[in-house]
Parts: sequence; C-alpha cells; structure tokens
Amino acid sequence: MKLYDGGRAPNPRRVRIFLAEKGISVPLEAVDIGTMQHKSEAFTAINPLQRLPALVLDDGTILTESIAICRYFEALQPEPVLFGRGAKEIALVEMWQRRVELNLMAAIQAVFRHLHPSMKELEKPQVPDWAQANKPRVEAFLALLDRELADRRFIAGDGYSVADITALVAVDFMKPAKLAMPPGLANVVRWHAEVSARPSASA
Amino acid sequence: MKLYDGGRAPNPRRVRIFLAEKGISVPLEAVDIGTMQHKSEAFTAINPLQRLPALVLDDGTILTESIAICRYFEALQPEPVLFGRGAKEIALVEMWQRRVELNLMAAIQAVFRHLHPSMKELEKPQVPDWAQANKPRVEAFLALLDRELADRRFIAGDGYSVADITALVAVDFMKPAKLAMPPGLANVVRWHAEVSARPSASA
Repeated sequence: MKLYDGGRAPNPRRVRIFLAEKGISVPLEAVDIGTMQHKSEAFTAINPLQRLPALVLDDGTILTESIAICRYFEALQPEPVLFGRGAKEIALVEMWQRRVELNLMAAIQAVFRHLHPSMKELEKPQVPDWAQANKPRVEAFLALLDRELADRRFIAGDGYSVADITALVAVDFMKPAKLAMPPGLANVVRWHAEVSARPSASA
Repeated sequence: MKLYDGGRAPNPRRVRIFLAEKGISVPLEAVDIGTMQHKSEAFTAINPLQRLPALVLDDGTILTESIAICRYFEALQPEPVLFGRGAKEIALVEMWQRRVELNLMAAIQAVFRHLHPSMKELEKPQVPDWAQANKPRVEAFLALLDRELADRRFIAGDGYSVADITALVAVDFMKPAKLAMPPGLANVVRWHAEVSARPSASA
C-alpha cells in the first residue's frame, strides 16, 4: 500500500490527520504540486483527474478522493470511529462533513484558486468574480457554525469526527486564501483551539 | 418521518430514486422552489442552508444533504446495497460518487445557475464567466467516464450504486442547463439508456 501525498494542500492533509487519529501508518510518496508533478504523465496514469491524494492498494486498485480513502481505512479499522455509529449518527456525520466541505471548504478554495497569483497556471481561467462571490459565503457559513457550536463540542456532535477534520483543514486554509476569521465567533474559536491542540493536527 | 421534497431539482430526485431502488416509501411534503418556498422562514427553520431535500425523523432530528439522507436509509435497510460492501467496494463507490458529483454534477449546476435567466433571483450574483469555465469540464469528465464505461457496466463497477444515481441525475440536468451530450460517447449513451430504463428513474 502506498499513499501519494501532496504536502501542504488541504486534501492530502485531511487524509494524514485521519490516519493519525486512527493510529495507522502508511508509506507516503511525495508528489510536488509546486512543480506540477501532479500534472505529469506518470501521475496522470494514477489519477486521470490529476488530484491528490491517491492510495494504491497492494492489488493495484487505485483509490482517490480524500473521503473515499478515509472511508476505506474506517472500514478496515473501525476504531476510533470517525464516521459515526448507528444510522442516525452516520447520517449526521455525513451531513456535517458535506455541509462543511461544500459550503466552507469549497468557498475558501474558490477564493484561493481564483485570486491567488500562484494559481495562475493551475486554475485556467481564473475567474476573480467567482472568488469575490464566495467571500460572503465563507462568512455566512462560519456564522452558522458558530451558532451550532454553542450547543455542542464538535462539528457533528459530542464526539470528534471526520467533519472536524474537514472543518479544521478548511479554516486553516483561510490563511493562504488571505481570509481573516470574522470577529465575534467565540464558539468557532474555542472549537478550533481544541481540534488544533490534538496531536493529529500536525500530521 | 417526513421528507421535504423539491420536485424537479436534481438533489431531491437523487433521494427519490434511491428510495425507489430500496423499495422504501416515505411521506413527502412538497416545497416549491419555483415560488421560493425553500427561502421561507418556515423552511429556513428546518434547513438554515435553505436547500432541499430535508428529512425529519420521528424524534425531531433533521437530516439534510441528499447523500446523508441516502446513507441513513442504507444503514436502516442495507439491501439492496447501494453504497458498496466490504472496504474496497465501499471506497470505490464513494470515490465515483464524489468524482461524479464534484466534477460533473457541480459543473453542470454551475452552468445552469450562472447562465439560466430563471436563476437570476436565486443565484446572486450570477457569474457568467464561471459558467463558461465549467462547460469544458463537463465535456472532459464525460469523456473520462466514456473510457471508464468501456470496461464495466455501471459507474463504480459491475453493480448499480448510488454513483449511478448521481450520474443519471447529473446527465439529465444537462437539458435544463442547455448542454448537449458530446458526440461519440457510445459507452455513456449505453449506460444512460440502461439506468434510465430502471423503474426508479421516473421517481
């Protein structure tokens, strides 16, 4: 088994944090996004969508999409449970994982990809108006999250889950996207400090 | 239990097809997107993100996000299995569900939401350049799918799965988005005819 890793990019970090929470160690192979190695012929043969991370199993099966890779490990080694247990909790974790990914992470990435000068070659065409349209979405979702976190410790409930991993990676990606945390979100700040203090956060 | 349904919109259709494949019947309550009922105070109390569908459980728990709702029913009633069985198949179904949703469905929806005159009030601001940037992505992903479907019957493997539901709904949404199926994609056309012929497709 081998995990093609993409360093500081958000999606590879999601999988590394997940593996750290599980206590699973997988051999990594670095793919340098900075020098566009993920667009190389060699890596395109592994993932035609040219995205990281990618997990190659011992039988040659290739798994891409961070959450699909995480689910693979969750099925192999259920404990500690990170996708919920029982129908209702499974659905709530999935709901929050998706809400955070589709409303917060995607909006922050849109700002980064469509405004940041370093993305000129990777995001063609850059659409600055699309980045601007996403800025208020980031603020609106963080405000919603703050109201939710008034009543519970973690994103999807009282237990840490994959939804916290996505949210942590998204919030930390606000810095390269040059987005500041809006003032007054005390619950988000408290949650962020707690999940950042876990050893997995530095994975 | 009650499912707030949104008629012809893509996400409500995903859940209705899923339920039809499972043979599960849930009381529906129509929410009219055309008259912006999903933006009403009453529905915002159910889903602050103002999106459909939403499932209200008997204990009052509210589940949103189509795939989270589908996973709830998969956990309640596993057969017929639509999210895969065993670690590798679960991961492959998740990978393809996400690939189709994030690369095909999202691109088609971007074209629709940012170009269609009917979306002027719902998508503020419309960013036509973002719609145009997504058109080649739709074609590129359909071409990739055509190569994949040369070797297998369904999107994620030899069995029908939730990835087929997402792909069917996405391809059918090309029509309102005024996107034509590119010529020469015989495998996509064959797959589309097969999944469209299932009774669930009309749900």
